[in-house]
Amino acid sequence: MPRYRIDIEYDGSRYAGWQRQAGQPTIQESIERAVLAFSGEAITLKGAGRTDAGVHALHQVGHFDLEATFNDRNVRDALNAHLILAEETIAILSAAQVDDTFDSRFSAKARHYLYRIGNRRAPFALDRNRVWHVKKHLDVEAMQEAANRLIGHHDFTTFRSSHCQSKSPMKTLDRLDVRRIGEEIEIRASARSFLHNQVRSLVGTLKKAGDGSWTADQVRNVLEARDRKQCGPVAPAYGLYLVGVDY
Amino acid sequence: MPRYRIDIEYDGSRYAGWQRQAGQPTIQESIERAVLAFSGEAITLKGAGRTDAGVHALHQVGHFDLEATFNDRNVRDALNAHLILAEETIAILSAAQVDDTFDSRFSAKARHYLYRIGNRRAPFALDRNRVWHVKKHLDVEAMQEAANRLIGHHDFTTFRSSHCQSKSPMKTLDRLDVRRIGEEIEIRASARSFLHNQVRSLVGTLKKAGDGSWTADQVRNVLEARDRKQCGPVAPAYGLYLVGVDY
Repeated sequence: MPRYRIDIEYDGSRYAGWQRQAGQPTIQESIERAVLAFSGEAITLKGAGRTDAGVHALHQVGHFDLEATFNDRNVRDALNAHLILAEETIAILSAAQVDDTFDSRFSAKARHYLYRIGNRRAPFALDRNRVWHVKKHLDVEAMQEAANRLIGHHDFTTFRSSHCQSKSPMKTLDRLDVRRIGEEIEIRASARSFLHNQVRSLVGTLKKAGDGSWTADQVRNVLEARDRKQCGPVAPAYGLYLVGVDY
Repeated sequence: MPRYRIDIEYDGSRYAGWQRQAGQPTIQESIERAVLAFSGEAITLKGAGRTDAGVHALHQVGHFDLEATFNDRNVRDALNAHLILAEETIAILSAAQVDDTFDSRFSAKARHYLYRIGNRRAPFALDRNRVWHVKKHLDVEAMQEAANRLIGHHDFTTFRSSHCQSKSPMKTLDRLDVRRIGEEIEIRASARSFLHNQVRSLVGTLKKAGDGSWTADQVRNVLEARDRKQCGPVAPAYGLYLVGVDY
């Protein structure tokens, strides 16, 4: 039974997230429907990251099994044709038959996220629902200093949604980089895996470091408190992008 | 009577263009309505570039006169508040009281446009209605070679819409740069002023140079023919951005 890996881009604005939910549009179900339309096979699509409602992906990875064998390019082109027809904001960047030991979720060695903050007085006309609009000027150096206190192996209970299904709150945050490019602040986070809402919780806390509400030491205390109530605001979903998965 | 200059960003997707038209949503009318809402004054907004339906602006410039005097920041913030309330995809980047000799259209010394081509097999999920999707690989060097034959002072009749109201087809094209950034090709065009549809006509012709249909010499012949029928396809509006105006 051939297994296919697909690499996926999506605008998450109109979806209730990656994971299938009865009565809600989801990325997973939309792609499963496109696979059915082109192959006649009802499959279950698995993905590397179960992104939340509104979260985008520049590079998500998924896999599924089919009875029949198709040419890789035909899989990509046929899926895209059906996704366009259904007016989905999902694109299949590539499709490739892979060994059946490949699992998009469990084989993943690292996940990379980008969070975009638009930092100016005026709203964003072209990047509406693409960046978190923060009017107050943010100090990027203060944000990086706070970020440095969060990198490493920690109990991230403070930065974990109450809905998180992960067995343990222990995670290793390998990268948390903050940089300004003109009016935009890019935050890049990498880890083997993340807790539910972890990146958006970290970003909300870094924002408080950037606007002068919290010092880097206070951010460290918030981490060490292991108390969800001490977390800063959770940054909005539409500023978050899954940008890559390493295997 | 104080005159205000406003600098404007917009997503042109849902508008019939800059210029007011009965029964159609336009950028001009939407901003005029916001000015009326905050000041109580019915004004006429003038703009540097009358962008077409679907064309975006990262930096358009306009001006209008009011009876009353307001603080510059208040003008910007009040206009943005009303534009957000009306769910317009228009943002006022800045507002500033200027001398009444300033005219956003007639004082302009140069206009700068960006055209974005997305050049890959897969469609664009996040940049839908933001880039022209061209599947066939385009040769950027061939495009630049063709572009070099178009720069300068010429009769641009070939690249002019039949609706163009300009008195003369003579224009000086100061810049036509083509460069690839990953899967995207950026074309940057600068001139004191452009004919109607000129940039999109030039881009459609450069695309034919990029996909091997036309040599640079053929592009030069097309220019010299001064014949609209010889023009390549007009590139779609949604890939075009007004990115700046010099005074």
